[in-house]
Amino acid sequence: MQETARFVVFFDEGNGRDKRLLGGKGAGLCEMTRLGLPVPSGFVITTEVCNKYYENGKQLPQGLMEQVRTSMKKLEQITGKGFGDRNNPLLVSVRSGAPISMPGMMDTILNLGLNDETVQGLAKQSNNTRFAWDAYRRFVQMFGKIVLGIDDEIFSKLLEDKKRQKKAKIDSELDEQALRELTRKFIEVCEKETEKAFPKDPYQQLELAIDAVFRSWMGERAVEYRKYYKITPDIAHGTAVNVVTMVFGNMGNDSATGVVFTRNPETGEKKLYGEFLINAQGEDVVAGVRTPEPIDRLEQKMPRAYQQLLQTCNNLERHYKEPQDVEFTIEHDKLYILQTRAGKTNAIAMVKTSVDMVNEGIITKEEAILRINPDDLEQLLHKRVDPKNSVKPIANGIGASPGAASGKVVFDVKKAEEMGKKGEKIILVREETKPDDVPAFFVSVGILTSRGGRTSHAAVVARGMGKPCVVGCSEISIDYKTNRFVANGTVVKANDIVTIDGVTGNMYLGQIRTIEPEMTEEFKQLLEWAEQMKRLGIRANADTPGAASLARKFGAQGIGLCRTERMFNAKDRLPLFVKMIMTRTEKDRLKVLNQLRTLQKSDFKAILKAMEGYPVTIRLLDPPLHEFLPRIEDLLREIYESGKRSPARAKKEKILERAKEIAEINPMMGHRGVRIGITFPEIYEMQIRAICEATAELAKKNVNAQPQIMIPQVGSAEELVAIKQIYERVKREVEEKQQIKLSIKFGTMIEVVRSCLTADSIAEVAEFFSFGTNDLTQAVFSFSREDVEGKFLPFYMEKGILLYNPFQSLDVNGVGKIMNMAIELGKGVRTELEIGICGEHGGDPRSIEFCDGMNLNYVSASPHRIPIAIIAAAKSAIKRKRATQPS
Amino acid sequence: MQETARFVVFFDEGNGRDKRLLGGKGAGLCEMTRLGLPVPSGFVITTEVCNKYYENGKQLPQGLMEQVRTSMKKLEQITGKGFGDRNNPLLVSVRSGAPISMPGMMDTILNLGLNDETVQGLAKQSNNTRFAWDAYRRFVQMFGKIVLGIDDEIFSKLLEDKKRQKKAKIDSELDEQALRELTRKFIEVCEKETEKAFPKDPYQQLELAIDAVFRSWMGERAVEYRKYYKITPDIAHGTAVNVVTMVFGNMGNDSATGVVFTRNPETGEKKLYGEFLINAQGEDVVAGVRTPEPIDRLEQKMPRAYQQLLQTCNNLERHYKEPQDVEFTIEHDKLYILQTRAGKTNAIAMVKTSVDMVNEGIITKEEAILRINPDDLEQLLHKRVDPKNSVKPIANGIGASPGAASGKVVFDVKKAEEMGKKGEKIILVREETKPDDVPAFFVSVGILTSRGGRTSHAAVVARGMGKPCVVGCSEISIDYKTNRFVANGTVVKANDIVTIDGVTGNMYLGQIRTIEPEMTEEFKQLLEWAEQMKRLGIRANADTPGAASLARKFGAQGIGLCRTERMFNAKDRLPLFVKMIMTRTEKDRLKVLNQLRTLQKSDFKAILKAMEGYPVTIRLLDPPLHEFLPRIEDLLREIYESGKRSPARAKKEKILERAKEIAEINPMMGHRGVRIGITFPEIYEMQIRAICEATAELAKKNVNAQPQIMIPQVGSAEELVAIKQIYERVKREVEEKQQIKLSIKFGTMIEVVRSCLTADSIAEVAEFFSFGTNDLTQAVFSFSREDVEGKFLPFYMEKGILLYNPFQSLDVNGVGKIMNMAIELGKGVRTELEIGICGEHGGDPRSIEFCDGMNLNYVSASPHRIPIAIIAAAKSAIKRKRATQPS
Repeated sequence: MQETARFVVFFDEGNGRDKRLLGGKGAGLCEMTRLGLPVPSGFVITTEVCNKYYENGKQLPQGLMEQVRTSMKKLEQITGKGFGDRNNPLLVSVRSGAPISMPGMMDTILNLGLNDETVQGLAKQSNNTRFAWDAYRRFVQMFGKIVLGIDDEIFSKLLEDKKRQKKAKIDSELDEQALRELTRKFIEVCEKETEKAFPKDPYQQLELAIDAVFRSWMGERAVEYRKYYKITPDIAHGTAVNVVTMVFGNMGNDSATGVVFTRNPETGEKKLYGEFLINAQGEDVVAGVRTPEPIDRLEQKMPRAYQQLLQTCNNLERHYKEPQDVEFTIEHDKLYILQTRAGKTNAIAMVKTSVDMVNEGIITKEEAILRINPDDLEQLLHKRVDPKNSVKPIANGIGASPGAASGKVVFDVKKAEEMGKKGEKIILVREETKPDDVPAFFVSVGILTSRGGRTSHAAVVARGMGKPCVVGCSEISIDYKTNRFVANGTVVKANDIVTIDGVTGNMYLGQIRTIEPEMTEEFKQLLEWAEQMKRLGIRANADTPGAASLARKFGAQGIGLCRTERMFNAKDRLPLFVKMIMTRTEKDRLKVLNQLRTLQKSDFKAILKAMEGYPVTIRLLDPPLHEFLPRIEDLLREIYESGKRSPARAKKEKILERAKEIAEINPMMGHRGVRIGITFPEIYEMQIRAICEATAELAKKNVNAQPQIMIPQVGSAEELVAIKQIYERVKREVEEKQQIKLSIKFGTMIEVVRSCLTADSIAEVAEFFSFGTNDLTQAVFSFSREDVEGKFLPFYMEKGILLYNPFQSLDVNGVGKIMNMAIELGKGVRTELEIGICGEHGGDPRSIEFCDGMNLNYVSASPHRIPIAIIAAAKSAIKRKRATQPS
Repeated sequence: MQETARFVVFFDEGNGRDKRLLGGKGAGLCEMTRLGLPVPSGFVITTEVCNKYYENGKQLPQGLMEQVRTSMKKLEQITGKGFGDRNNPLLVSVRSGAPISMPGMMDTILNLGLNDETVQGLAKQSNNTRFAWDAYRRFVQMFGKIVLGIDDEIFSKLLEDKKRQKKAKIDSELDEQALRELTRKFIEVCEKETEKAFPKDPYQQLELAIDAVFRSWMGERAVEYRKYYKITPDIAHGTAVNVVTMVFGNMGNDSATGVVFTRNPETGEKKLYGEFLINAQGEDVVAGVRTPEPIDRLEQKMPRAYQQLLQTCNNLERHYKEPQDVEFTIEHDKLYILQTRAGKTNAIAMVKTSVDMVNEGIITKEEAILRINPDDLEQLLHKRVDPKNSVKPIANGIGASPGAASGKVVFDVKKAEEMGKKGEKIILVREETKPDDVPAFFVSVGILTSRGGRTSHAAVVARGMGKPCVVGCSEISIDYKTNRFVANGTVVKANDIVTIDGVTGNMYLGQIRTIEPEMTEEFKQLLEWAEQMKRLGIRANADTPGAASLARKFGAQGIGLCRTERMFNAKDRLPLFVKMIMTRTEKDRLKVLNQLRTLQKSDFKAILKAMEGYPVTIRLLDPPLHEFLPRIEDLLREIYESGKRSPARAKKEKILERAKEIAEINPMMGHRGVRIGITFPEIYEMQIRAICEATAELAKKNVNAQPQIMIPQVGSAEELVAIKQIYERVKREVEEKQQIKLSIKFGTMIEVVRSCLTADSIAEVAEFFSFGTNDLTQAVFSFSREDVEGKFLPFYMEKGILLYNPFQSLDVNGVGKIMNMAIELGKGVRTELEIGICGEHGGDPRSIEFCDGMNLNYVSASPHRIPIAIIAAAKSAIKRKRATQPS
């Protein structure tokens, strides 16, 4: 016989650290109970039950409801009330709570246990019949929507009708009679839609509610959310269900409900931040129906409760070592904490609170770094509207998620999805947003709402995604029917472009000039700590002096990848380069190359100077030559359309001929990189000479240039040897001519699979390796990035064949494996071999951690990812240190 | 003090097995001396000296000439003659001889030791003043050309002038006086050209000659030869120099010289084969100046010498266990053997002599197999002119290398190289050929000469290369000036097409129908032995029932690769397939796929039937869909040129639109293979269903079909799982419908690098692996085969960056390494995993040996390579057996 599993954990029994079993909310309630904080009694139905539920084909496991009944009996004992008791009824809320926070993604039912009889008891208990019927009305509506699956619009419409009939502006103006009628109507709707009687038995209600919460785990919204945040099943692990004794913030004017952050989630300021509503239930705050009051007013209105809240928040922070996001309710001036969780903050706040909490002695520097999700820092590096703009905003709202964005106005969620998928930049404009709108968030560059506060749905979700957001912009009035809004008299239609600033809350007509952000003091402090803790070197991918300076400002310790071909694409270079390609003899080629050398030398001098004292890895020409010629299809069209014979046409035909001659079927794997260097050695020789001359000339001006010459597409030691001979000869020639000793390292990209497999013999020639993980990923997968990334790769990720895009985050099992092999082989031959990575993965935190684990010397990332890379490298170093220390 | 190395080895001291030290010729001379065969006395200057020579910057090592002098003293003692002795002079030949035979590629100097004084002594010795001056004349000419580097044309012209002046038709009609004058003239030429006195001192002559032989090792001809035959420096190891006492075949009519094969090198017949010239020196035979007599006439003319020769040949064969290629000279009816080496034969002869020698008890079956160079067998599988042709040949010569070839007539070596490099098929037509002409051989499909015999330069070289060759075609007269030849009255100009048959010696005007060869009894015998010895399975790459039958006839044990897309390219299928691509909805696609299924099923039934009882591995659709549409460039041209609007143009525009939509930048790494199977599962489902239905229908007719379903381009287990689900469902459906149990294996190509790296998880899903080494080689090198093979790859091989084309012969260091990894990972998970290879390497002997070493289950090769693969597999098995046995 199978032993009955333990499905239910009472708040005073649970291990507050076991989020995996109890969910985040459940664990928090248990922990707070243990700490003696004022938490309503209740119990958790564990995430294991959720998993069993899905294993059983969406059936609650046998024995569960027995355990629930036992727990409800315990609740009755504690509260002295009875579940379904017509005189003194116990009411509960039923709330989801997963191990990973997914705010607003799953469902909650309040006031469960009400029916036509217990509503009378509630009226007696509260001495407030109107309150009782309001609670009942709310319960039926929530139950109808969530458990019975009835369209909420039906209830909303009935509510609005009733308000109009009763001439009530807001819900709370409806009287008892109206609420009674409304409740009846709601029950009728439920019974009509489901063709069943509305469940009156509280235990039946409870069972159905638990089932509904579990069902919501695989609801479209929740699934979509997990996909966006890459929460894989092994991490997600189902949801728990919390059954909690109801406390009421809507018991009159000595009651209230609110949400509070222990610190400001936008600025990080150490001050309670949040909102509350007197005489309201929690959903009223979140939904943004009534505009709530800022939390500091609570100090005046309910000073005792406020002090208790302040103290509790401090305790929670010291205990959890994280700013908290706390839900509370005050029932007859008594404070209850309904939930606590780590506060979702924007990046500025994340950085500031981390640094502050170190200074306050709450956490260590290492803990501060570990708190940071490096990817979120990108927000800090986002642009904002240039304050020097003379353009006036057409409206102002609440800046709820920083950053500036310009895009076409879109009102409709479906339309937003359509346009977004086409790659158009759009600003989603709504009165308020609901979880159903989340798909539109993903494809928008910014969000603007006319209602709601800083904790409204739109604000929370946008902050989580790091997208600029302005909420509560009451200066605009939206007309969904005509697809337009009016902002202080200005009419803005769908598809008009607006710009929003998520810090100031300003909204502008048209596309407005923006500026790059400066780093906060706290961010600088954090980076300083991180730089001391990290082992991995951080370099930049930069091809221009400007990019080099920016990278250095951000903390780059050199350039890991300087792509010389980008210089050929400049306007004054391209015609010369095309001329070089058109030459048929080495002699003609040399003439043009000589001109190009002068230009390249000046480029190199500027970049080397900008990175003085740091290594600058210069990659010789990589792409196939035909990439510099016009596309054959375009040439064909131009020739066909040019009509008559003309010198222009003749020239085009000549280019066409050459383009066809050197066209390739798979240019990615064609005549490029070192293969060009070997077949046209004069091109590489020109580049090497330009580097040597630039270095020599700088040295004479006492500029400490540290170039490294890097050869792309190498697949065998023999290729590298051929180029090294040129390098050695040219270096010697320049040294002799300039009477100077040059120190220029010679190394190779490792981006061809064969170079990994033969890295031992390659390391005998190369002084350094730099993994080109973009090309390596292409070769390992046989995926042409340009052909798959926008095409079938999303499909692969949707089907779960790939968990992430391997061009964004390093494929550890495949690409990582062969990198490891290359490192072992290379270091086996040359222990001091310098190894780095210069693919785009160099800026991806997950990949950086992997690279650190492989003991690479450095990663190279684009300049604006440098701070992210520094933090990620520090996190990795801390984790590795901890892994080797007994905890 | 450094000990003086041993540079010189006397014939009676040398170890005849040490070819590496002594060279082939030197080792042979030592060995024959040891066996007591009649060899002129002499010594070998070892290959070590050659390597020292190049290390020293082309200087003979110190101490060498002292050792040479000591050896010359010994020779003087043995012969009783004196080097430089004016009364009884010792003359020697100086000959190159490398460890690897390179016939005609390096230089020989005869009659060394002659000067104005010793020539008198030679006259006395031989009692033949004319002979002495002829020898002196030849010596000066050879010395002038080879040692002093004077253009041989100058000497030839003087000789021709003298002959005209003296009205002599052939050299031997020149009298003593003429030869005296000619010798003087030759010396004058030498002194004028070099501005130095002609060396009279024999030791000075000898030193210069030794230097010249070593120099010729790096001569253009020799380097070219080694490159063509892939003789790498580690194998080649320099040349030795042989200094041999002169014996003379031109001492009168009781003297002769000749070349003999111990068996017929074209047919393998056990009968002496070769030619001789009475009263001539060796060079006269090889150069084809006088037409020599067939060897059997020697039996009548010099019966004693002939019997001695026959006996010696038998002894040599039994000793060396190989048919020999023997140079001999008869001086006053006394036989001398000047050289013996393994006889170069064509494939028919190689096979026949191997089998015969087994039957004669000379070698074992294993030794017979080991003798075979499997690649040479391709000759046996070459076509020949269909004897049923009613076309009459325009001329007949000596068939000297089998096979038939048609091509454009080219007379000029440079021109031949030019045209050949463009890929044109050419027949090189020359009066006779010289080593300088070898570059033209490489690019010709066949060779035709008007002079020379079966052992002429042209014949030997062409046979070695396996190219059809007709020599001694005296029915044609060539006029190099007008670029034409006349064949029995028919005028043939340059660029006209002719066909030659290297067996019959016939030459035809135009392109003539050819037929495939049948296998000889001996070949069948050899294959039978090989089949018993080999471990590796041999399967065929075959896409049609015809190819399947051919493969089975050749001994294939199944089909390793049946490419289903080739079926879609058939004329009746392509429009349907294009229609399928043009569909926009799954519903429309299914309609067309249903039609295609019927066609595919009938294909599968026919192939499975042809391979009844053997596995047939069917690969599902591999190429990207756009490959089935017309090229965008062609569509554009057609549309532009079609002018006005028309329904035809509209249709083309529609196709163009779709083609552009699915066009790819790197189709090799794009949306293809399993990626199509996952995004358009209905296509793979159709193919799987066709296979299942075909198998079921055949089973009902008692045909034992053994299909295996193979998925291309797999890079992860997840992809394979997705397709396996379809396979399992469809198989179940067909099984239920047809009431039959199907046994169809499910497996994958291993051609994506990532599949090698994750072969463990892939082996959990796949029942078999088949290495697609074509694609794998592309991915490992990042070489797009179509873009590199005809373009920079030859350049890479010329520069020695690659030693061979990795698409022809498996790259062991790179591709081989990752294959090994895949095998280890795969077998670690599934010990009974079947692993094969179906890339083109499956037919390459070197690659087959590598695959056998990795313990693959089978290789799959194109049908006409099956016998080659069988022999290669047997050789490998024998070598492996020997490697594990103590010798």
